[in-house]
Amino acid sequence: MTDFFKGIPAVKYEGPDSDNDYAFRHYNPDEVVMGKPMKDHLRFAAAYWHSFAWPGGDPFGGQTFERPWFGDTLADAKLKADVAFEMFQILGVPYYCFHDADVRPEGADFAENTRNLEAIVDYFGEKMDETGIKLLWGTANLFSHRRFMSGAATNPDPDVFAFSAATIKTCMDATIKLGGENYVLWGGREGYETLLNTDMGRERQQAGRMLQMVVDYKHKMGFEGAILIEPKPQEPTKHQYDYDVATVYGFLKDFGLEGEVQVNIEQGHAILAGHSFEHELALARELGIFGSIDMNRNDYQSGWDTDQFPNNVPEMALAYYEVLRAGGFKTGGTNFDAKLRRQSLDAEDLILAHVGGMDACAAGFKAAAAMLEDGKLEAARDARYAGWQTEAGTGLLDSDLSAIHDRVVAEGINPEPRSGKQERLENLINRYL
Amino acid sequence: MTDFFKGIPAVKYEGPDSDNDYAFRHYNPDEVVMGKPMKDHLRFAAAYWHSFAWPGGDPFGGQTFERPWFGDTLADAKLKADVAFEMFQILGVPYYCFHDADVRPEGADFAENTRNLEAIVDYFGEKMDETGIKLLWGTANLFSHRRFMSGAATNPDPDVFAFSAATIKTCMDATIKLGGENYVLWGGREGYETLLNTDMGRERQQAGRMLQMVVDYKHKMGFEGAILIEPKPQEPTKHQYDYDVATVYGFLKDFGLEGEVQVNIEQGHAILAGHSFEHELALARELGIFGSIDMNRNDYQSGWDTDQFPNNVPEMALAYYEVLRAGGFKTGGTNFDAKLRRQSLDAEDLILAHVGGMDACAAGFKAAAAMLEDGKLEAARDARYAGWQTEAGTGLLDSDLSAIHDRVVAEGINPEPRSGKQERLENLINRYL
Amino acid sequence: MTDFFKGIPAVKYEGPDSDNDYAFRHYNPDEVVMGKPMKDHLRFAAAYWHSFAWPGGDPFGGQTFERPWFGDTLADAKLKADVAFEMFQILGVPYYCFHDADVRPEGADFAENTRNLEAIVDYFGEKMDETGIKLLWGTANLFSHRRFMSGAATNPDPDVFAFSAATIKTCMDATIKLGGENYVLWGGREGYETLLNTDMGRERQQAGRMLQMVVDYKHKMGFEGAILIEPKPQEPTKHQYDYDVATVYGFLKDFGLEGEVQVNIEQGHAILAGHSFEHELALARELGIFGSIDMNRNDYQSGWDTDQFPNNVPEMALAYYEVLRAGGFKTGGTNFDAKLRRQSLDAEDLILAHVGGMDACAAGFKAAAAMLEDGKLEAARDARYAGWQTEAGTGLLDSDLSAIHDRVVAEGINPEPRSGKQERLENLINRYL
Amino acid sequence: MTDFFKGIPAVKYEGPDSDNDYAFRHYNPDEVVMGKPMKDHLRFAAAYWHSFAWPGGDPFGGQTFERPWFGDTLADAKLKADVAFEMFQILGVPYYCFHDADVRPEGADFAENTRNLEAIVDYFGEKMDETGIKLLWGTANLFSHRRFMSGAATNPDPDVFAFSAATIKTCMDATIKLGGENYVLWGGREGYETLLNTDMGRERQQAGRMLQMVVDYKHKMGFEGAILIEPKPQEPTKHQYDYDVATVYGFLKDFGLEGEVQVNIEQGHAILAGHSFEHELALARELGIFGSIDMNRNDYQSGWDTDQFPNNVPEMALAYYEVLRAGGFKTGGTNFDAKLRRQSLDAEDLILAHVGGMDACAAGFKAAAAMLEDGKLEAARDARYAGWQTEAGTGLLDSDLSAIHDRVVAEGINPEPRSGKQERLENLINRYL
Repeated sequence: MTDFFKGIPAVKYEGPDSDNDYAFRHYNPDEVVMGKPMKDHLRFAAAYWHSFAWPGGDPFGGQTFERPWFGDTLADAKLKADVAFEMFQILGVPYYCFHDADVRPEGADFAENTRNLEAIVDYFGEKMDETGIKLLWGTANLFSHRRFMSGAATNPDPDVFAFSAATIKTCMDATIKLGGENYVLWGGREGYETLLNTDMGRERQQAGRMLQMVVDYKHKMGFEGAILIEPKPQEPTKHQYDYDVATVYGFLKDFGLEGEVQVNIEQGHAILAGHSFEHELALARELGIFGSIDMNRNDYQSGWDTDQFPNNVPEMALAYYEVLRAGGFKTGGTNFDAKLRRQSLDAEDLILAHVGGMDACAAGFKAAAAMLEDGKLEAARDARYAGWQTEAGTGLLDSDLSAIHDRVVAEGINPEPRSGKQERLENLINRYL
Repeated sequence: MTDFFKGIPAVKYEGPDSDNDYAFRHYNPDEVVMGKPMKDHLRFAAAYWHSFAWPGGDPFGGQTFERPWFGDTLADAKLKADVAFEMFQILGVPYYCFHDADVRPEGADFAENTRNLEAIVDYFGEKMDETGIKLLWGTANLFSHRRFMSGAATNPDPDVFAFSAATIKTCMDATIKLGGENYVLWGGREGYETLLNTDMGRERQQAGRMLQMVVDYKHKMGFEGAILIEPKPQEPTKHQYDYDVATVYGFLKDFGLEGEVQVNIEQGHAILAGHSFEHELALARELGIFGSIDMNRNDYQSGWDTDQFPNNVPEMALAYYEVLRAGGFKTGGTNFDAKLRRQSLDAEDLILAHVGGMDACAAGFKAAAAMLEDGKLEAARDARYAGWQTEAGTGLLDSDLSAIHDRVVAEGINPEPRSGKQERLENLINRYL
Repeated sequence: MTDFFKGIPAVKYEGPDSDNDYAFRHYNPDEVVMGKPMKDHLRFAAAYWHSFAWPGGDPFGGQTFERPWFGDTLADAKLKADVAFEMFQILGVPYYCFHDADVRPEGADFAENTRNLEAIVDYFGEKMDETGIKLLWGTANLFSHRRFMSGAATNPDPDVFAFSAATIKTCMDATIKLGGENYVLWGGREGYETLLNTDMGRERQQAGRMLQMVVDYKHKMGFEGAILIEPKPQEPTKHQYDYDVATVYGFLKDFGLEGEVQVNIEQGHAILAGHSFEHELALARELGIFGSIDMNRNDYQSGWDTDQFPNNVPEMALAYYEVLRAGGFKTGGTNFDAKLRRQSLDAEDLILAHVGGMDACAAGFKAAAAMLEDGKLEAARDARYAGWQTEAGTGLLDSDLSAIHDRVVAEGINPEPRSGKQERLENLINRYL
Repeated sequence: MTDFFKGIPAVKYEGPDSDNDYAFRHYNPDEVVMGKPMKDHLRFAAAYWHSFAWPGGDPFGGQTFERPWFGDTLADAKLKADVAFEMFQILGVPYYCFHDADVRPEGADFAENTRNLEAIVDYFGEKMDETGIKLLWGTANLFSHRRFMSGAATNPDPDVFAFSAATIKTCMDATIKLGGENYVLWGGREGYETLLNTDMGRERQQAGRMLQMVVDYKHKMGFEGAILIEPKPQEPTKHQYDYDVATVYGFLKDFGLEGEVQVNIEQGHAILAGHSFEHELALARELGIFGSIDMNRNDYQSGWDTDQFPNNVPEMALAYYEVLRAGGFKTGGTNFDAKLRRQSLDAEDLILAHVGGMDACAAGFKAAAAMLEDGKLEAARDARYAGWQTEAGTGLLDSDLSAIHDRVVAEGINPEPRSGKQERLENLINRYL
């Protein structure tokens, strides 16, 4: 054991009345809901990125966190891994996630990056064996290093495309080696700062081709996990190509990859794109590309990605309701790529943030399950569209404008609007919370 | 002649030094730019909707305009048409556009709506013959009447789908009869107020099927014009299905209609969706679905569609630059579906708004043409991607992850970033303005 | 009894497990919390404005509601009053609120407006006597009629200032006659569409002078209620002068009225101004100008005022926490100037919207009271600032830059940052919900 | 001479037809406009902050710039100063601005910070003597170091207040020694991340007291320059106390400092607060607190401070029009606290960014001067309010509600609205551009 979390106990379920900061009040991993233990519904993962690799800076301020593992050596990286796995165990999360740059020292070149990553992958392998903790997904950080400043797959310089492709290969290899259940692509620099210097059509082709290569490599290696794209509208770039779920869908259709690639949806990214989280989830479900979620909340008054730990239970209930309607997670799960506030300096803050976030998810999930099991909401929805189940309704979509026109004239169709009952349904939701 | 514009002269080009309010300073219809008269590049259209049908209300206030044609009779509608065509002639616009509800009295039922529309179409036909003014596009208003409050094609009630289909047929018939060059669909109510009562998957299928019927009817009738969808993210609904160009593209791909349908892009709608106008134009061009534009500006500090007349010449230059890069308008044009401020009560306000908007467009267009003809901007763009024209670059997209990986290792590829030169390019743009 | 709410029972408290749509699950009017019945804490009021006067239109669509009282006669206005008071009784709200234009027929001129208002005030007086329902506040609608399109107090035309002043007098008279506990001013048109035609300095003076007249008239009439300004940043105008609480405070200070006038804060307006609701409440408290609230929620994805009924209990808890920290309502209360969705056509929708909103408020309020009584949150806040209670801390604010500088040098002060514990506090909040 | 700008010539005015990247097309420093050379109107200043101290990072990426002066020694700081003054000379800007942390190495403690600052101030003094370049303003960076993470003046820890006060003293001393014409305060951390841990009332008092100390020290030292607050609504914090001009005004009034302190307004900050730049300028003028400007543009589609160099001439014309209406700059000026895009790596980018920005300002300024001299805009504004110059109008503001009411009744005042002529005025503006 390292010293970092010294004195912090493993977090257990104690029920809604507990006033122990280090207890779950709603997340009871083995409690069976809708026929399955909660842990298998929620499939919680903790991420390296913000929790262990972010120093606490923002655009107007530098590092606030002082972690013993900050540094550039392999020893630092191993200490970081030790602490990370201790946290995973304290929380009892079954999964974790990482970018290559989160876990390995930055090398001077590609070869050194690869060596460093391989060393850490071996170390992770041992820790996973010891603890039983699994990898939800791996990914390549193709956005932080200055070589990616103008894009990775979409860079004007083909050498950057090549460097990116090679890096993805090593990260997919690492993910496969560690038994990861998904591989994620977030295109933080795949977009533009100004249209004036950008060949959007060409860059789109480059991105499509890279994605095809990823899919090909997946099949070549016999990887059974999902390939996931994480949409985001902007930040860091002025405009990102993977703007939102609908945009990603059009892109997948264009390259014939809609059966091969799914989406990893983040609440904060949905908000930045002008959608609600539940919209993006529902749309992905309807389009058949729902994969996984990042449960990072945005602040509604901030115009950038605040990546906060979630805490609003009613919002989470609506989100998990859409997840459940999609049939729940298959390879996906609930990842916290969330970040502590930069003023939350203490080791205990890191634990409590996850405890609160997991518990809010669990409370929201249970409410969602109750809504779905009760069936009132779905019954109301079905009733609203019942006209489409009548003979007249079912025939309509197979008709044409002229025939429909003639029927409207002949029958004098003059429809009366019917109440949408929004307030009643909103009241209903609150009954399960 | 009616009295409405009494005393207002026909507006002519007088050059940049004119201080006549009723003169164009930049729009010289017959001036040849890039081998074509400006009027054939810009293809200006004036719209009925806000200019003649909107009473000046907003969510907190009622009618401010008092127009002699406000009323529910066919005589009112004809007076409105008289005034509208007088305005078209004063401005010298070659085109106009309309919704059915803008031009005909509202009937008690479908049959009366049709009779009213047909009467006005006949009247329009005479006026078009007299004046030589043409129809850029027609469209059906499937959003103002209460029957459409929960959607037209996407309504939970199949009777509303039927009523909508029949109405579209009559509006396509009217458009065809008047020689319209496009038919537009704006789905103001095709979306939702709350996900809780919405079957998004079903509604999407309904919308796709309706669009297919429109395309089928176009072919059946031998209509040569374009079918145009006008994207908008929200307002009046909380969320519209035709959110933006990328969303419409995915939808078209899903229903196999990407070769049949194009987009009509509005500046204000682009802004509401979180994009710049030029982004939406460029994207439509790259996706091969660019059709036409509505030149209605949004206020950057307002979160709703202000639909103002355009006035910022540098912004217009960037927009027309993308139009020119798309090869210019084919069937499309520059429509002003813009609205006077509700405090602009006077007949002269209506004329001056169009004069200023047209002139700002013309100034922007001329700057865009100069940029393109000068070639410096495109030369800089090409130079930025020159690496992709080398042998190494061209082969890269045909390769795969493993092969690229091996090349990166073998050649020690370690790319150095290169300046994007954004500020230099922005300075360059200002040189043409 | 009218027929409008036929079959709808009076709504009673049935406890959290009730599944009766027409029951309160949290609002138990006589339950004592923190030493006072809930009804006296929450002081619920229902508003005429959206519930009885709004026809369901939006910028793209007309009337959807068909109410038997829509019309322009005094008989219509009395029927409206009958229905309104029936709703107040069904809900058991102790208060109501109105604008003059909500309740009286629009007259041809000022004199007719006054006569109409007086007739309705008499009718209200009888109904209030019969039912025991009281008036929380009255106000003048100085924004809907076209005469106010360019402002009321801030109009470029002094005649509009005069008309507005006279109207305010009649509305204050009505409020006083009916025993209203507050008088509200919302400056929907006090702002501008464009700076180009606006003399902001002059308009500000006009607004200040009008407010002084209102305060003078209050004192002249011996009115004991509060004068309340309702801040809003924009909509309908591009920019309103009463942007937010901080702006109103500066305005009050400028005219020496900060002891005379308080604010009526609306959640939706706070959001539009870029603040959270709780921010505006807390700021008003700290500035000593907190008065009352309008509990109308905005949709976070919409850029205009959606004025929805509230439903997110955690948000309401944070709001009432700030209200309780301000000492609770004095003359103020919780008004629902909220509007049904325009698709919610039915009489029952109107009742259920209020039931759900009131219940969500009650649940939030109870959580807020528990938080405050438990004291953990305030203890944590106090602990964070404890250094300012030490001798060194208390002296600091009485010192000066030079003396402090010398102390920093002499003592080698080099402060270490301490965790802000945000996540722990957010977890704590969830414990009371 | 250092090597950094090797080969880059001094930038001179060559007139609108020049196609030399390194020439001004509009900024002709000695050209007399409205009786004064342009350089004395515009009073351009270049800032250290982004141009020399920012490494090119963003929330998702690290350093992109590789500057020879990046490092922690005094020698690095002197090289930076050499390069900075070379840039000031190349551009011909009469002024520069700095934060302490931009120019000195970061010390281990306050004493070392002070020694480092003093060394650089001496070096600056020599350079200013040699070049004739003057200091527009100095300021203290009380937001980047982790000790300020929870505020400077508003910190819960009084030691941070003390450290901040001491630092301000040294920065005011430096500013005074170098003949600075203003001293600026930007409260980047004076605000909160969460209300839950914040005592807003106490923090506001701390901020007020600190400002009073600054004003007292100014007078004690006989400093004749202005004290300027720079409003910003948020970022880095969730909410900053100096939200916008109106908020700062209320704060100044509260502490009786409205005659002592002015505002330094930034375009980007105005936009983030939901205002236009010209709104903030006009409001500051009307409130008598206009001081200076930061000419950093925001991207309208981005929700954070992009701090770009300005390039839209029509927007700049509206801004300088308000500056001219305020009587022009007194101690203030036009500062570029603007930043290169992080992809703009080259030395020439830094020069061209300033050249373009200065030239856009100059073009906008000349248009603004022409508008004001021509007088049509002001004549239209005056005409709109002419009614207030009549006898009836002037008496109105001295009257009271009752008397006005009686006059409205007696005279049957029933005002007709008049057109606001917005479109005509917008057309007029375009005539000067």
